[in-house]
Amino acid sequence: MSKFISYRYKDMLPYVPGEQPQDKAYIKLNTNESPFEPSPEAKKVLSDGNMKSLNLYPDPDSKALVKAIAERFGIEENNVAVSNGSDEMLAFCFMAFCDDKTGVAFPDISYGFYKVFADLFCLSYEAIPLKEDFSIDADDYKNKKKTIFIANPNAPTGLSLSNREIEEILSSNKDNIVVIDEAYADFSDSSAIELINKYDNLIVVRTFSKSVNLAGGRVGYAIACKELVEDINKMKYSFNPYNVNTMSGAVATAAIKDKSYFDECVAKVKSAREYTIKELRDLGFSVLESKANFVFAKKDGLSGKKMYEDLKSRGILIRRFDSERIKEYLRITIGSMEQMKKFIEVIKEIVEESI
Amino acid sequence: MSKFISYRYKDMLPYVPGEQPQDKAYIKLNTNESPFEPSPEAKKVLSDGNMKSLNLYPDPDSKALVKAIAERFGIEENNVAVSNGSDEMLAFCFMAFCDDKTGVAFPDISYGFYKVFADLFCLSYEAIPLKEDFSIDADDYKNKKKTIFIANPNAPTGLSLSNREIEEILSSNKDNIVVIDEAYADFSDSSAIELINKYDNLIVVRTFSKSVNLAGGRVGYAIACKELVEDINKMKYSFNPYNVNTMSGAVATAAIKDKSYFDECVAKVKSAREYTIKELRDLGFSVLESKANFVFAKKDGLSGKKMYEDLKSRGILIRRFDSERIKEYLRITIGSMEQMKKFIEVIKEIVEESI
Repeated sequence: MSKFISYRYKDMLPYVPGEQPQDKAYIKLNTNESPFEPSPEAKKVLSDGNMKSLNLYPDPDSKALVKAIAERFGIEENNVAVSNGSDEMLAFCFMAFCDDKTGVAFPDISYGFYKVFADLFCLSYEAIPLKEDFSIDADDYKNKKKTIFIANPNAPTGLSLSNREIEEILSSNKDNIVVIDEAYADFSDSSAIELINKYDNLIVVRTFSKSVNLAGGRVGYAIACKELVEDINKMKYSFNPYNVNTMSGAVATAAIKDKSYFDECVAKVKSAREYTIKELRDLGFSVLESKANFVFAKKDGLSGKKMYEDLKSRGILIRRFDSERIKEYLRITIGSMEQMKKFIEVIKEIVEESI
Repeated sequence: MSKFISYRYKDMLPYVPGEQPQDKAYIKLNTNESPFEPSPEAKKVLSDGNMKSLNLYPDPDSKALVKAIAERFGIEENNVAVSNGSDEMLAFCFMAFCDDKTGVAFPDISYGFYKVFADLFCLSYEAIPLKEDFSIDADDYKNKKKTIFIANPNAPTGLSLSNREIEEILSSNKDNIVVIDEAYADFSDSSAIELINKYDNLIVVRTFSKSVNLAGGRVGYAIACKELVEDINKMKYSFNPYNVNTMSGAVATAAIKDKSYFDECVAKVKSAREYTIKELRDLGFSVLESKANFVFAKKDGLSGKKMYEDLKSRGILIRRFDSERIKEYLRITIGSMEQMKKFIEVIKEIVEESI
């Protein structure tokens, strides 16, 4: 750190991404990526023609991508804004809709970046405790007079709120924005997208990183009423107008149009998730009812930290967190069925060795 | 605009990028892009193998790219930080090194984004007037007690400061950061990179968008002492850790390694620039002494706005600005020699018609 950094950031703790080892081949169940390659349509879209024109700036409005997203969800193009991954979109929402007068509220156990953004933008925040069973109590979010961020399904728990509960939160916070972060919603049974025309205070944030198999492409988006999309784009044009590069725009457009490949991948993840939950429970693990592409599990008597280390030494990366209430839990990304069978085989050995 | 946007942003004016027409083919001399395709090495680097792994997150440290940049300039890897275009890097610098106690200073006629960032981050700023001849007076930047941003060469003038003048600014502002924005420095004769080990308050910001023919790839970088690089990366990891996507990282790495193609492209631009300056002067234009890949020119008695419109109607896009002091000037990006010959031919017609 230099002596020049703003006093506001001297003690700020940045977000710590999951490990991305560049040297050794692990079974990577640690960053909620898809185990499947991108759509064949996406892989082939960067023809020589696209690469030739990389000397020119991208379309700052990303019109083709916005159109493809709108068509996918049956909404208007002015209901869609795009970003360099959904983290950037979340940052735009923190900037646009929070300030010294309007603080922010989010679950105490959730996507770790919400707290980082609150610190980055010097906002007062309220971290609302999850219930004893790790679920979110919608009642805790009513009449908050703050901008609310809720990951649904939540991470790292995988638990989700129903649209009925989300509507209760929206209608009791009519003067504040509610951001529903649907990074994992394609693995669940519902989405708040269907509510955008009913609530002018709702922003749904989504990503191509999980269900669309494009974490390396960095594309996120928001869906909301057109006035909120205008606000978000005002932030984008004041921060980084060309935020989605030409290649990522083309690849994401092709990928979201390929609905059948998407459906196939999501179905495989769901099926491997059910397999993993059953096997872990058979081994005596407590596993939360995940609606996401990961499961959150612990086994009484076994240390989360030790299991993490034992798995890593046997070539499997999972993620865990040090905070008190969840330190014995493992967050296990759902990979392919083959990867999950290998994971179960290894975790069985680890359990047996511990007896 | 919604009723929810922060009071701080109700009146904010976003940056307005140059036109990026997606429908019609213009000779595009309006956004300072390179007229040349990316390096052949860059075009071919996205083999099927790279595209297959897009389901995985990029390396958040962009190690390969950082290494290639460090090797190119003969510096250490910990002297380099990377970003999603240099606009994002400038934003990180505004966030890290300016606040309510430390304001910002920049030339009144310069890259229009500096003022937008000052507004976005709610900073007080001083826009220091250029001299009568549009040059920057280094004396105006001494002992500012503010964070200083200087584009060198400056845009839209193309004029540049010498390293001697930059050193005077650096050494008279030892308690403040001086950001030298070298978006166009590859077209000039010098760079402040050679000063980073001498001044711990210097940050040099650069881009792949101009001289490396990769505006569509969105890659920017900063070069500074390692403590400042740590500060910048603290902002990156608190805003968007995976800010450089896998494809852009790979393409940029290949491009910056291909020094001979780079040299060839830069030499062609310089040669077309000298041709354009001479021809415009022969037509009676006042042309500033450009060290960039654009020229800034006006012709007494001819309206800048009308010339812009006449050029556009004949298939040539250039850029102009409405502010009082420069409203009669055209900013003409240097394209290929063929494009510039066409431009000169058309501007000759326009001049002749005006007599």
